[in-house]
This record gives sequence, C-alpha cells and structure tokens, in this order.
Amino acid sequence: MADVWPTGAAWGEALSIAGVDCRDLAAEFGTPLYVLDEADARMRARAFYEAYTAAGAHLVSYAAKALCATAVLRWVTEEGLGVDVATGGELAVALRAGVTGDRLTLHGNNKSVAEIEAAIAAGVGHIVIDSFEEIVRVADAARRAVVVQPVLIRVTTGIEAHTHEFISTAHEDQKFGLSVASGDAEEAARRIVKLPSLRLDGLHSHIGSQIFDARGFEAAAQRVVALATRIRDEQGVELAEFNLGGGMGIAYLADDDPLDVTDMAAQIGDIVGKQCADAGLAMPQLAFEPGRAIIGPAGVTLYEVGTVKPVTLEDGSVRTYVSVDGGMSDNIRTALYDAHYTVALASRESKAEPILVRVVGKHCESGDIVVRDAMLPGDITAGDLVAVAATGAYCRSMASNYNWVPRPALVAVSEGQASIILRRETIEDLLELDAGA
Amino acid sequence: MADVWPTGAAWGEALSIAGVDCRDLAAEFGTPLYVLDEADARMRARAFYEAYTAAGAHLVSYAAKALCATAVLRWVTEEGLGVDVATGGELAVALRAGVTGDRLTLHGNNKSVAEIEAAIAAGVGHIVIDSFEEIVRVADAARRAVVVQPVLIRVTTGIEAHTHEFISTAHEDQKFGLSVASGDAEEAARRIVKLPSLRLDGLHSHIGSQIFDARGFEAAAQRVVALATRIRDEQGVELAEFNLGGGMGIAYLADDDPLDVTDMAAQIGDIVGKQCADAGLAMPQLAFEPGRAIIGPAGVTLYEVGTVKPVTLEDGSVRTYVSVDGGMSDNIRTALYDAHYTVALASRESKAEPILVRVVGKHCESGDIVVRDAMLPGDITAGDLVAVAATGAYCRSMASNYNWVPRPALVAVSEGQASIILRRETIEDLLELDAGA
Repeated sequence: MADVWPTGAAWGEALSIAGVDCRDLAAEFGTPLYVLDEADARMRARAFYEAYTAAGAHLVSYAAKALCATAVLRWVTEEGLGVDVATGGELAVALRAGVTGDRLTLHGNNKSVAEIEAAIAAGVGHIVIDSFEEIVRVADAARRAVVVQPVLIRVTTGIEAHTHEFISTAHEDQKFGLSVASGDAEEAARRIVKLPSLRLDGLHSHIGSQIFDARGFEAAAQRVVALATRIRDEQGVELAEFNLGGGMGIAYLADDDPLDVTDMAAQIGDIVGKQCADAGLAMPQLAFEPGRAIIGPAGVTLYEVGTVKPVTLEDGSVRTYVSVDGGMSDNIRTALYDAHYTVALASRESKAEPILVRVVGKHCESGDIVVRDAMLPGDITAGDLVAVAATGAYCRSMASNYNWVPRPALVAVSEGQASIILRRETIEDLLELDAGA
Repeated sequence: MADVWPTGAAWGEALSIAGVDCRDLAAEFGTPLYVLDEADARMRARAFYEAYTAAGAHLVSYAAKALCATAVLRWVTEEGLGVDVATGGELAVALRAGVTGDRLTLHGNNKSVAEIEAAIAAGVGHIVIDSFEEIVRVADAARRAVVVQPVLIRVTTGIEAHTHEFISTAHEDQKFGLSVASGDAEEAARRIVKLPSLRLDGLHSHIGSQIFDARGFEAAAQRVVALATRIRDEQGVELAEFNLGGGMGIAYLADDDPLDVTDMAAQIGDIVGKQCADAGLAMPQLAFEPGRAIIGPAGVTLYEVGTVKPVTLEDGSVRTYVSVDGGMSDNIRTALYDAHYTVALASRESKAEPILVRVVGKHCESGDIVVRDAMLPGDITAGDLVAVAATGAYCRSMASNYNWVPRPALVAVSEGQASIILRRETIEDLLELDAGA
C-alpha cells in the first residue's frame, strides 16, 4: 500500500501537514487551497539527486512545467537539482529564483526566437534541439550573441512507456524530436557539428510519464546507445551526455506501486553502463528530468464541501455527489486524463459508515469531476474540509479561470508555519485584463 | 457545407475579418490572438432573440461561461438577450457590463452563500435551485435581505442530448439538479412554496451540448410538462416558466450540420405548445440559454507557424506536424473533448498541393494538439499565420497558463477597426502572483 499523502501529513482530530492544522490553513488562506509540504518536496529532490548521481548522472533537473513558482525552484536547486524549462515564462521564473544558467536546460518543440535568445543570454547549459529548423535558429542566435551554445538533440526512439508497460515501434507519431529510425537524428548531428556557434554534447530521449519500472528506459537507452555508436563510427563524434528525460511515476492511489527512487536509478544506471560497455562506448554522463515525482506527492488540495446530493442510479444503487468549492479549474487532470485521486475527510474524525461518493466541482459542466469514485464517511456534510492527495504537479500549473473562478492560493507548510508561494487570484485580477464595456 | 468562419471573414490575398487584415491584427496585437467578429456575434444574438421570442420565450439568456467579457455581455444584451451566470466572477462581469438584475439568472450546483447573497443583492431575475440544501440557503439569504427571491428548480429528466442523438433513461448520474424520476423535483416544489422568502416561478432543464436537432428537447419537454402537470394537480401550483437551457450546436467542420436557429426555435415552441395543450396546461413562458451558438462561430484564433516537421508513420505515409505559438493553454478542447476544428492558411494565398497536417502547440506534452487532422498547403512554413475557426466559445474561457504561457489577447473587429476586449497577459502578470523565492 503506497502512502499517497505528504510525509508531513498527520491524521489526528484533523489532518495536519508539517504541523499545521488544515482547519487553520482554510481559515487563514481560504479554500480551495493548494498546500505543499516543503520538507517532503525537498526530501524527494534530495533523494533523486543522490540516487541518480550515484547512478552516473551529472545533472538531475526538476521539470518546471509540473509546478512553476520561484520558491519551489529555490527548494529544488538548494537540494542539488537543476531546472528544465520549456518556455520563456518558465525561464523567467527560474532566473527570478536565482537559478544559474549552467543549471538550466531549455526544451520545447517550437521555441520562439525570443525564447532562444533569452536562454542564450541566460547562459543555459543546454538547449535541446527539436527539429532541423531549430538547428539554424539556435545557431544563428548563438552567432549573434557571439557564444558557442551547447546543445543536445531530442531523439524519438519509438519507445513509449507508461506505468508498467511500454510500447516499442519503429516510428513515433508525435510532435517532439528527430527520429532515430528515419536517420533524421543522425543527420541533425551531422549538421550541428558543422556549425561553429553550436557544440553538440549529446542526445536527449523522453519516453513518457507515470512510469513505474525501468524496462521502458532500458528499451529507449538501447536505441540511444546504438545511435551514439553510429554517430561515433560514421561521424567520429563522441557524445558526452545522454539525457534520458523524466516520467518517473508517483502513487495517486494506495494500490499504485511505483518503483523506489533508488532502485530505479540504480537499474537505469546499470542498464546504460552495460549497454555502453557492450557497444564499446565510453560511459557518457547521464542526466534526468523528474518533475511530478518531486512535487506531486508534496501537494494536497483542500476544498470545502458545499452540497451533498445522493443520486439514485439506474440499478437502484446510490451515488452521493459531494460538491466542493473548486473543480476542473484547479484540477483539470481528472477530466483531461481520466486521472484518479485519493480524497479524505480532513477537518474532523468520523466513525460514520463510508459511502460511495463522487467529488465534483462547482463548474457549469457535468464533466467537472475531481475524484470519480471514492469512499467518504456517510456523515460528510456542508462545511467539512476534504483533502485530495498528490496534487502538487500539473494542478496549479494547468489551472484555468473557467467560469471566471479565480485560481486558489498555493501555500508552503514547514515546521508549523505556512507561507504563501502563489497568492490567490481575485475577481479584480480577472477584471484587470478586461478592457471594459 | 456549413460555413465555419465568421460572416465577416473574407479570403483575398489574406484572411480579413470585418475588413481587418489578419496580418495587421498579428502585427498590432501579436499571436496567438483571439479575434471576435462583433457583427457576427450581434447577428447571432439577435437571431436567437427573434426566433425564440417568436417561439414563446420571454427571456433568451447568453450563457456567460462560453466567453465572459464585459464587451461581449454588452453586445448580447443590446441585441435583446439576458445573461446567465454560474459564479460570482461571471456575475461581477455582468454587473460591470451594466446588465440589470432582472436580465440575470444564477446557476450552479454548488453556489456559495456569498454568491447567493451577491445575486440577491443584484436583484437577479431567477436563482436556479439545484439541491434541497440550496432551497434553505437561498431562502435564508433572501430572508436576511428582506426580499422574495424568484427561483426555478433545476430538474434532471433523464434525457441527455448530443448532436443528432439523445439518450433517455429514468435517472441521471450527474451532479446537477433534482431528479424527476425519484420525486425529488416535486418534493423541492413542495418545500419551496412553503417558504415566504422564495417564489417558485418554474422549472429548468438542460439536456446537453452541441445539439443539432430538436428531438432531445422534445423528450425532455415531455417530462417537464408531465412534472408540471403533477405539481399542478397535486400541489395546486401553476408554474409560469419553463427554462429549457441551452446546448444548441454549431459547426466546427464543414460537414457539421446544425439545425437552423429559426427552425429549431419554431420546432421547440410547437412541441411544448402541443404537449401543454395535450396535458391541459396553460402554455408557460419559455426561456433559453444559448452560449456557444452566439459566440462560438464569431471567434477565430490566429497563430504563427514555427516548426514544420514531416514525420514518417509506421505505414510509410507522412504526417506533417505544424507547430504554432500557442496550444492547449489557449484551446484545451481538442485534448479535453477530442474536439475537431477547421484550420486554414490565413496570411497568404497558396496554390501548393495540400498535405495532411496535425496542428500542434508549443507545450511540453505530446497531447498538446490544436487540430488533429487537417489539410494545409504543402508549402506551409515558419512565419505563416494560420486561423482556426469557431474558437469563440470555451477557448479563452478555459485558457490556462500551462508552461507559464501568458494568455492571448482577445480583440473585437468591426467595420475595419480592431479593439481590445481582454488584453494579453504578460509574464509580469504571472510573476505578480508569485510571492518570490
């Protein structure tokens, strides 16, 4: 049974996180509220840093897209991580957080020239080249800035991994990267090494998300190693770095069972080491980009219950709809990915018999579901607080103002204290964008 | 073949809308850009007003959730419509737009007490009661405000309509409303009429979205009429209003074929009239709530093309990924609902042979697709502008800052002039919420 709650969560009369009672959080900051257990996030960042460094990584980067806020980027860099950014917006937050350029990686299938220029000006460690056109764009921008920009090539290996499964094809029908199978990846290497404003450091592969074991990485690494061997043999270029991306999964439900961080790191390190040895390739430096696995489990969303409505279903059974004061605007993942979450009554203890519930939001849409199926105490009622676990990643970062609902605050809790990371939006913030009637 | 473009769209050397060249729009306001054809939106609002008034409606309300901005609410009210709002945020925009309380309807499955109080203070024409608990909440708030608040009961009829199909069940497994089948809707009427601070005006039914014919409305109206008859016979209460909601569909693709506005209005009016006559019920006033059908077709999103990448598929065919400078942050509907859109090269004419493309965004996610399958000229290239049709509804309203991408501006075009409705967000706006490192 996986523990889906942050390490600082304690269940007494009410849920507390890092020593802060959730009822006090709701009273001080309002609901809905995103709460991050700072020590939990730091512990996971440190664990990834240590495990993957031990496995041969020279850089473990936090994927800022999971949750982008200066405090979070400061935590993870203090624990040893770099930061990978995909846009000018994420880059701006990273720079504001004081992340130095050499700890930054710029991603993206369609970086604007302005984003490329900003990244070069910031001295980012690597720009990950995603297309032939981008080779020229980055080379031109580097030449204008009179620098030699280190780059990686994003390659598509045909491996797509998810949870305990992976699929392996010759081609990948998606927007990212340059295909290994078609020869485009090798051709990109040929072009890059001819350009004096670029320095080709290595290859980048990303195989998916919510990955629970190492077999997908093994299959992808095999193709990356084979490609690097061909590039060495045919072009005489030794590649110093393999960035194997992110996608390490987390538990959203108690029966989710992701591989231990240290185990997966060791397995991947061993796999690549063996494959390189077999290929007669010097072991490259490795790099990894976990995002969700650092910040996801540290986050909890607190909601206040409004309406509780038992609905009789076709078969005569009853499903109780528990409406909360947020919904698809603060967590689109349930509707978008059919994601599953764990929910619990947080503001009091209850011995009432559990009932089947669906936790829904307040948006004007029947698909506005937060937790599709869960059990909550049968006396759940208006004014109760419920907590949804593992909402640190891809909830605030994908939040909208649907139904003109302002986005919740994000607070950090640590050693009995709470502090705001992203303040709550207000209706005035929304109206400020509106030019008027 | 449906025309998916706004009525003011003209295709010459480049796409112009209401006499404004899209290249000038991109140059002045940047891309991505949401563009609304004001005359088109007004024409559709007027058409709905006239057709549904002729069919027996005393109120046709624009559903603000589709796109909520003061200018839009002003346009539609000037053309005769009321406004339905689902949150305090939408209510605030409506009041700022000068919509008078009597033209407003408040919806929502989980209205907060603050929202109920604000609606009562604004003198909204109707609050739509969605649960037993809400009867008490609204009655209490009205009593505190010393007013008698007119209300409707949101009933679930078991009819769910979509496009040319509808399903009919005894129960509805969703969060909205009070069930007709279980007797909850009748029980709600019993409770409401006993409360002196509430006035029960009628029933509200909403059966779905993207509805292309009147048969779903017919099936739902039958159950609403039967319910009203029972309430009259058993409780002696004559209900003066049936609000049949919205959901009238629009064309996203050329072969979509929604029913003409006037035809559907006339059919629904006839159906309800006949059903009431059969039941010996006085014909109630009708009300309707179109949202998408007013503002959806008036909107176009302009994007600039960045990367163009041909990808060889497993079967040897080629799909060209055309990356634009926006994506799932400004249009989540493709990823969320598997929605389909029409896209065209907008900034120039091309005689190049069309190729199969997928228009994708710039977000760090493989599901970041704007248009899944489309044909564009084979010479599509970086710097081109493409236009996506029918993005007026549920695009800006559901937009996020995923990857910390600021949301695009929304501009209105009318008689050769462009004006900002919602200004473009900036990275500074996003950082303003961030409490710092």
